[in-house]
Amino acid sequence: MSDNLTTKILRAHFASGELSPGRDVTVSVDQVLLEDATGTMTAMQFEMLGVDSVAVPLAVTYVDHNVLQIDDKNMQDHQYLRTFSARYGLHYSPAGHGISHYIHLEKYARPGGVLVGADSHSSMAGAVGMFAAGAGGLEVAVAMAGFGFDFVCPEVVGVELRGRLVGAASAKDIVLELLRRHDVRGGRGKVFEFFGDAVAGLSTSARGTICNMIVETGATTAIFPSDSETRRWLVEQGREADFQELTADDGAAYNSVESIELGALVPLIAIPHSPGNVKTVAETSGVELSQVCVGSSVNSSYEDLATVAAILKGQQIHPRIQLTVTPGSRQILQTIIASGVYDDLLQAGARMLEPICGPCVGIGQAPLGNEASLRTFNRNFPGRSGTAEDMVYLCSPATAAASALTGVITDPSAVGIQSLRPAVHAGMDIHSIHISAPLPEARRTAIEIIRGSNLVPPPVPGPLPPTIDARVLTVVGDDVSTGDMAPDGAIAMSVWSNIKACAAFMFRRVDPGFHDRAREWDGGVIVGGENYGQGSSREHAALVPLYLGIRVIAARSYARIHRRNLIAVGIVPLLIPPSARSTPGEHWVIEGLADAITSSATEVTALVGGGGSLQLGLDLSPSERSVLASGGLLAHILNGARPGVASAHPAELTEAS
Amino acid sequence: MSDNLTTKILRAHFASGELSPGRDVTVSVDQVLLEDATGTMTAMQFEMLGVDSVAVPLAVTYVDHNVLQIDDKNMQDHQYLRTFSARYGLHYSPAGHGISHYIHLEKYARPGGVLVGADSHSSMAGAVGMFAAGAGGLEVAVAMAGFGFDFVCPEVVGVELRGRLVGAASAKDIVLELLRRHDVRGGRGKVFEFFGDAVAGLSTSARGTICNMIVETGATTAIFPSDSETRRWLVEQGREADFQELTADDGAAYNSVESIELGALVPLIAIPHSPGNVKTVAETSGVELSQVCVGSSVNSSYEDLATVAAILKGQQIHPRIQLTVTPGSRQILQTIIASGVYDDLLQAGARMLEPICGPCVGIGQAPLGNEASLRTFNRNFPGRSGTAEDMVYLCSPATAAASALTGVITDPSAVGIQSLRPAVHAGMDIHSIHISAPLPEARRTAIEIIRGSNLVPPPVPGPLPPTIDARVLTVVGDDVSTGDMAPDGAIAMSVWSNIKACAAFMFRRVDPGFHDRAREWDGGVIVGGENYGQGSSREHAALVPLYLGIRVIAARSYARIHRRNLIAVGIVPLLIPPSARSTPGEHWVIEGLADAITSSATEVTALVGGGGSLQLGLDLSPSERSVLASGGLLAHILNGARPGVASAHPAELTEAS
Repeated sequence: MSDNLTTKILRAHFASGELSPGRDVTVSVDQVLLEDATGTMTAMQFEMLGVDSVAVPLAVTYVDHNVLQIDDKNMQDHQYLRTFSARYGLHYSPAGHGISHYIHLEKYARPGGVLVGADSHSSMAGAVGMFAAGAGGLEVAVAMAGFGFDFVCPEVVGVELRGRLVGAASAKDIVLELLRRHDVRGGRGKVFEFFGDAVAGLSTSARGTICNMIVETGATTAIFPSDSETRRWLVEQGREADFQELTADDGAAYNSVESIELGALVPLIAIPHSPGNVKTVAETSGVELSQVCVGSSVNSSYEDLATVAAILKGQQIHPRIQLTVTPGSRQILQTIIASGVYDDLLQAGARMLEPICGPCVGIGQAPLGNEASLRTFNRNFPGRSGTAEDMVYLCSPATAAASALTGVITDPSAVGIQSLRPAVHAGMDIHSIHISAPLPEARRTAIEIIRGSNLVPPPVPGPLPPTIDARVLTVVGDDVSTGDMAPDGAIAMSVWSNIKACAAFMFRRVDPGFHDRAREWDGGVIVGGENYGQGSSREHAALVPLYLGIRVIAARSYARIHRRNLIAVGIVPLLIPPSARSTPGEHWVIEGLADAITSSATEVTALVGGGGSLQLGLDLSPSERSVLASGGLLAHILNGARPGVASAHPAELTEAS
Repeated sequence: MSDNLTTKILRAHFASGELSPGRDVTVSVDQVLLEDATGTMTAMQFEMLGVDSVAVPLAVTYVDHNVLQIDDKNMQDHQYLRTFSARYGLHYSPAGHGISHYIHLEKYARPGGVLVGADSHSSMAGAVGMFAAGAGGLEVAVAMAGFGFDFVCPEVVGVELRGRLVGAASAKDIVLELLRRHDVRGGRGKVFEFFGDAVAGLSTSARGTICNMIVETGATTAIFPSDSETRRWLVEQGREADFQELTADDGAAYNSVESIELGALVPLIAIPHSPGNVKTVAETSGVELSQVCVGSSVNSSYEDLATVAAILKGQQIHPRIQLTVTPGSRQILQTIIASGVYDDLLQAGARMLEPICGPCVGIGQAPLGNEASLRTFNRNFPGRSGTAEDMVYLCSPATAAASALTGVITDPSAVGIQSLRPAVHAGMDIHSIHISAPLPEARRTAIEIIRGSNLVPPPVPGPLPPTIDARVLTVVGDDVSTGDMAPDGAIAMSVWSNIKACAAFMFRRVDPGFHDRAREWDGGVIVGGENYGQGSSREHAALVPLYLGIRVIAARSYARIHRRNLIAVGIVPLLIPPSARSTPGEHWVIEGLADAITSSATEVTALVGGGGSLQLGLDLSPSERSVLASGGLLAHILNGARPGVASAHPAELTEAS
C-alpha cells in the first residue's frame, strides 16, 4: 500500500463508510478544539446529547474571540464555558491567554492525530502532520460525545514545494499563491498535502500559516509531513514524546499534483474584498493606508513578529498609520519580550494588544471606511473588520512592516530582513499559560454550570415538512460568506449565544430588510449563488435561518462547512441551476421533499407562483440523507442512528504506517 | 504676605476679578490638556472661536479613551484630532500611547503652572505643585484660545499629612479617607492643599493618585508642594529645568485645616455605587469576586503595578477571577517590562492591556451583572463599567492583588509588600512615546483637517427666551452623574462627536423614556436633587439638553464642572428648595427669566400648572450672569465680552513668591 499522508492518518482512524473521495466516511477523533465565539452553541448542543463527559482523549476550550467585553454578555459566555469545561472534562484556556490555533500547536497538536475544531482555521494543526478540520458546532459536539467525525471524504492534492524562499517572500506568500491559483472555490472537497525538498526549510510556524489560510480556497484542510523540524518544535515545546516521523509513502498517489517554485515567489497581497483577489504587492504599491494590523491566527508567531520588528527597528512608523500587533499566544508574548522584539515594536510606535483574535473578526480596531487597512490576516470579506465600508488588504508580516513605515502599500523586497532574531528559549516558561486541566470525574459531577441570561439554547428542528410552501425571501450573489449571515464584530458577536438575538443581524449588509421579512412571512426560501456560505464555520449562519422558519436553501453551490451545518440543523441545501432567475417574493411549492430525501431522488421540482417550475438538485450523500430524514443531526444521534466510535489508540497509526 | 501654595500660583496668574473664595476670577493658563472623548467637542468649539492657533504655551491632545474601535467612528475621531492638532499647534499623543494624566505628569506638568484640562481628573498634575483643574470642553477651548480660565475662586483646605503609611496602606487609602470624610459633595468649592511631615515620604505617583481622585469629593483640585521628591521626579524625566521649589509660605492661612495620621490608616474600599461609600476592606472582606481590574488614571503607575506584581509573584490568581492590568503610559509599560513586573503579572495570570483608560470608562472589560468587580479606579457610578447591573468596588492596588489571589475581597494587611522593586531607569527611553510636536506656523496653515461623518459640530444656543413655558420632563434623585446623561462605554462613547446621536442615551438608565419625551414635548425642564451632574467633565451632559430644547434645570445643588457647562451652553442652573415636590408632566411658566439674570435677581418664580408656584434660586456670579445674558460662552467670547489674557511668564511666579 502506497498511501499519501492524509489517507494514512484517515485509514488509522477509519471507523465506517468508505475512504474514497466523495463518499461518506466516519473517523475516530483524538482531539476537539472549541473557541468561545462558536463554542457556546457547541457546548449547549453537547449538553443536549445527554452524555456524561467528553469521550475523546483531549478537548480544549479557548476563550479568544469575544474578550473586549463592552457589556456583560462576553463574561457570561466565559463563565458558562469555564463551568461547562469543568463539568464535562475539557481543558479551559481563559480570556486573553492566546489564540486557540497557536496554543493548540504549542501544547497539543501531534503528528498522526485527528483534530476536529469548531473553528474553520483549526486546519492549522496540519503543520505538525495532524489531520485537522474545522466543522460546525453541532458536528463538533457530536464528535466530542464519542460519535466520531462523519464527513465527505476529500480528494488529496499533492503540492510539491521546490527550492527555497528568497528575498522578502514568506509562508504567507505561499498560501496566497495557492489562493491566486484556486481562488475561494477551487479547494472545495480537497486536502492540500505538502511534500518536496522545500518543506524541510519551512518552520512549524510557517507551515501553520499555510495550513491555517488554506481553508480560504474552500479546502477541507492542509497537512505537512512530520519531520525533523516537527521534532525540533515538539522538543522546544517539551513534548518530544508526541513526535513520530510521518510522511507519505514513497510513490504515494494523489488525486492531483501541483508544484510551487519557492524561489520564484514574490510578495503577494489579497485586495478587497476576497482572499482570492491576489495580486503582487508591486502591482498595488502606493495605495495610501491609515492602518496596519499584524496578528491573527495566521500570522502572529514569534517569527512573524520578529520579522516585523527587524524591519521597524530603530525607525518610526508613518504618523498617519495606526499599527497594532497581536501576539498569537502567551508563549509568543513572553518570547518577544525576552528577545527584545516587543520593545522594538513599541519603540517604533506599534500598539501592542493582548494575544487574542481581536481585529481579525472585527473585535476592535475597525478601520476607517473607504480607506485601505493592511492586515496580515486571513479574510477580508466585506464588513468583517467591523466597518461596513472597509477596504482590507491581506499580506505577509514583511509587507505589513514595510508599509507601516511608508504609509502606503510597499513591496518589502528592498528591505533587508535577514536579521531575524533567533527564538529565545532559555528560561522561557512555556507552561505559564493558565489552562485548567480537566477535573477528576468525581469532582466534575459536583460542578454547577453557570448560565447567564445571554446563554439561550438553540432551536431544535422538527421533522422536515412533506411540502415546502414558501416565498423567496432574498436572492444573494456568489461567495456570500457566513459572516454575512452571522456578522463579525464586538457588537454582533456578543449575542452569539442567543440565536434569536443573532437573527436581527442576518444579511444586514446585503439585504437589511431580510430579518423583518422572514419574521413577517414566517420563513421562506433563500436563493444563493456559487460557494454559498464560504468562510467561517459559525453554525449561527444555519441556526438563524432555522430559527426564522427556513427549511430549504437553493444555491448554485455551497462551501463545505456551511453546507454541513445546514444539514445538521435540518435545512436542505438544494442546488439551483445557473440559468434560473428568481425574485424575492416569488412563491415556491416543493412537494414531496421529505420523500425525495429518503428515496435517494436527485431532483425536486419547485412550482413557481405565476406559472413555471424549477428543477432543483438534491446532491446529498447517504449519511446526509439520513441526517435530514431524522430531522437534523441532534435527533439523528439521539435516535441512535449513528454508533459510537472509540478513539484510535495512538499505536494503531504506527501499525498502519 | 503669607500665602498658601494655591493662592501663590493663582496670584501669579491673576488676570482679572477677585482672588477671594466665591468670587469670579480669571487666571492665565500655561497648559491645556485634551483627551479624545471630550476633545472632539472641545476642538470643534475651538474652531468656532475663529482663532488661528492655540494661544497658550502648551496644549496637548491625548487619544486614550475611545480606542477599542468597534466600528469606524473611533478612528474618525482620531483622524480629526490628529489633523486638528497639526493645524492649530497642539502636541498629539496617538491612540494606545498612554493615559493623558500619566503622560502629562511625565512630560509636561510643572511646578507653579496653571493647567486646564477637558477631563475632570486633570487635577492629577497637582502632584508636582501645579494648579490643575478640569473643566468643560468649551471653557477649555476658550482658555486655549487665549482668554484665560474664568472660574469661581475656591476655598483652600489645608490638609496636614502626619507620620508615615504602615502595612498595606497606600496613597489610594489616603484619598479614600478624604472621601470617607467628605463624601462626594463635601469638597465642592474647595482646593485640597497638602502639607506636613508625611508629604516628603510620598512619591510623585502617590501624590498623583491623591490629586486625581480628589475630584470625587466635588473639589476643584488638589495640590502638593514642589519639593525634593518633585525634583527627583523631574530629573528622572529629563526635565530638571522645569523644577522649582514651591511650598506654602510659613504661617500661610487656609480657609480650613484638617489632618490625617497616616500611621492610623488601614486599607479602605468604596462600595457600590459611589466613591463616597467608603468602608474598611476588613469590613467588606469575603465578598466573592469574578473580576479584578488594575489601572486607570488614578492607579496605573510603576509603583502601583510593581506592588501588584510583588504580591502576585510566584502565585496564581484564583481561577474564577479575570484580572486585567492597564499600565498608565508607555514609559510605565517599558519600565514594568525592564523590571520584570510585566512578566510576574503575566505568569500570575493577568491580562495585560494597552496603556489606555479602558475599563475605567466601560471601554472594555464590562463585568458580570450583580457580581462584584474590584477595581483600582476612581469611580463606581452605576453602569459606568458598561454593565447596567454592575457592582463595582474601588480600592488600592495592594487590596486588588490580595483579592485576585483569593477570589474574594481580602485585606492585604497580612501580605508582605515591602519587596517592591526599584524603578528601572537605566537605558529606559522616556521619549519613545510618539507624541507629535506642533508644526511650525508656516506648515500649519497647509494642514487639511479631516472630518468624518461622525464629526458633527455641536448645537449653539440662541438667546435665552424671556419666558420659559415648559413641562417637567423628569425628576431625578441626588448625586446623578454626568455619566447618567452621557453614558460611558464603547458603544455610547463612540458617538460623543455627534450630540444628536448622544441624545438617545441621556438618562437611559434612570429614565429610559426621557429622550423620546423631550423630543415629543420639544424640550422642558429637568428637576434634579443634590450635587446634580457630579463626576466627569463631559459637556455632552449639557449639550444634549441644549439640543433637546432645554434651557433651565432646577436642582437642589450642582457639581462644579457640570454647572459651569450648563451656563457655557446657555442653560440656567436654577436652585429648587429641598421642600419642593415636582412631578414629570407638570407645567411650569417662568416669566422674566432673561431679565432676572441681567438684573441680578436672586430668585425667579415658576407658576406651576394647576395652581401654586415655586420660588427658584438664581445663585450666579456676575461673570456667569454675563455669559448667560450673552446666550452662552461662545457668543460671549465672539461678542468680545471677555478680553484676551496673556500667559504668565514663568518668572512672574518666582517674583510673586
